[in-house]
Amino acid sequence: MARFFHMLAFRPLADVLGSNDSGVMKILWLFAHPDQRSLNAHLRDEGIRELSALGHEYRQSDLYAMEWKAAVDADDFDHDSAEPFRVGSASKRAYMSGKLSDDIRAERDKLRWAETVILQFPLWWYGMPAILKGWFDRVFVRGFAYDVVENGRTLRYGEGGLSGKRAMVVVSAGAREATFAPRGINGEINDLLFPLQHGTLWYTGMDVVPPLLVPAADRFSAEQFEQAAKELRERLRTLPTTTPLPFRRQNSGDYDKDLVLRPEIAPGRTGNGVHRTG
Amino acid sequence: MARFFHMLAFRPLADVLGSNDSGVMKILWLFAHPDQRSLNAHLRDEGIRELSALGHEYRQSDLYAMEWKAAVDADDFDHDSAEPFRVGSASKRAYMSGKLSDDIRAERDKLRWAETVILQFPLWWYGMPAILKGWFDRVFVRGFAYDVVENGRTLRYGEGGLSGKRAMVVVSAGAREATFAPRGINGEINDLLFPLQHGTLWYTGMDVVPPLLVPAADRFSAEQFEQAAKELRERLRTLPTTTPLPFRRQNSGDYDKDLVLRPEIAPGRTGNGVHRTG
Repeated sequence: MARFFHMLAFRPLADVLGSNDSGVMKILWLFAHPDQRSLNAHLRDEGIRELSALGHEYRQSDLYAMEWKAAVDADDFDHDSAEPFRVGSASKRAYMSGKLSDDIRAERDKLRWAETVILQFPLWWYGMPAILKGWFDRVFVRGFAYDVVENGRTLRYGEGGLSGKRAMVVVSAGAREATFAPRGINGEINDLLFPLQHGTLWYTGMDVVPPLLVPAADRFSAEQFEQAAKELRERLRTLPTTTPLPFRRQNSGDYDKDLVLRPEIAPGRTGNGVHRTG
Repeated sequence: MARFFHMLAFRPLADVLGSNDSGVMKILWLFAHPDQRSLNAHLRDEGIRELSALGHEYRQSDLYAMEWKAAVDADDFDHDSAEPFRVGSASKRAYMSGKLSDDIRAERDKLRWAETVILQFPLWWYGMPAILKGWFDRVFVRGFAYDVVENGRTLRYGEGGLSGKRAMVVVSAGAREATFAPRGINGEINDLLFPLQHGTLWYTGMDVVPPLLVPAADRFSAEQFEQAAKELRERLRTLPTTTPLPFRRQNSGDYDKDLVLRPEIAPGRTGNGVHRTG
């Protein structure tokens, strides 16, 4: 707890809240659907209209429209093909020497600029579309998003290169809502999103607010669309003050030196849920 | 239980075991690493050598070497761009009318041929590399891998288009093994792989044997490589008789009509683990 207040003391409150002094948020909207006539595209349009109405600033990365390259490779990092290619070290070298490919650099700059990131996608095979997964594989380079060291300590899970930013997932799914409930057959939505929300966003230091799930999206009526758009607008209005998912901080004392949860924390329990305080 | 025996009665035993009468397995090895000099590539070579020594047949999809296209789009399904593009329905139409793109058709044919699928990849952001995710997004088309209907019932989770096949994940990770333990900070390995092992492989009817995790892979010594290769060889030798992960079948009676786990099954419990019987 002492540590928490210590951090707050050195971070402007508005930064913690994901907005700057004026109350204006800088938002990067990542969009990963191949069709501009889709439910997702219409929802995105509604969302962006709402952000404008609220006076926020936004940029968009419409990955299909950009023809974003999904698969990370040596070309991304101006890597000498005579040398073995390890994504982490090659990406760090390129990042440090300013040799990231142009498309990665452009996304890195948007991400630096943004205080809040919206990730919107259809749930395909219970995860992100490949094009969006490839955005993380390519843009979250070592030394920038992760493997940031401070006082000899690697910042990770709650602290890191993207600390101070917040993120929200907006995800549509064909299956019905009940199937994503805590005992639904598809798995609880936060359990499904654990690699993204915990292993990627929280890992790099971002606060993650609860996702907006848009279920049964293959059979939407006009009324259902209006309801989903209304929910999205409400979530965007309250985004700066929404309580993030209470993931545990790596360096909070909850984990031992092997980064295993101490026996007295959530005793006897397992599962993704143990990495949250509530 | 009655239902289980009923299914066995209509499935040849060798099919259930993932091998044919002669004991020869037909294996598709999916490989998703960009460097042929990598730890993963060397492990793959060891694995394929072992399969040959055992007299099995194999095919390989080396996704980076094939320059596999990761992002599914309308071109994959000869889709009329004047019409809204929905991946599921467009893929089914193309599948039924023989209009899948050539690269997807080639993978579908390999998958049809295979009795067992090995998926080998480095864990990037706690999931598959985008290029491999895109293999599922593009090859697991509707009507072939999923949305297979039998007697008016949609086959899913334990039954489906790929029923009778088995799969094994071979995954390397930079982080140490303890961090993937049931209370490790990264999440238990089967929880991380839940969208793939449960939501994709089991969803389409495949049996999934426990994954082989190769941790701390960034700092491997020659001895550690030998140990990992030995484990892989052993896993391949025992693959036909290894007990699969005991995921619950959708149509076993454990789920109610909304596909939520019945209250008397794993009472009061939540998390991915409730979808396994042990």
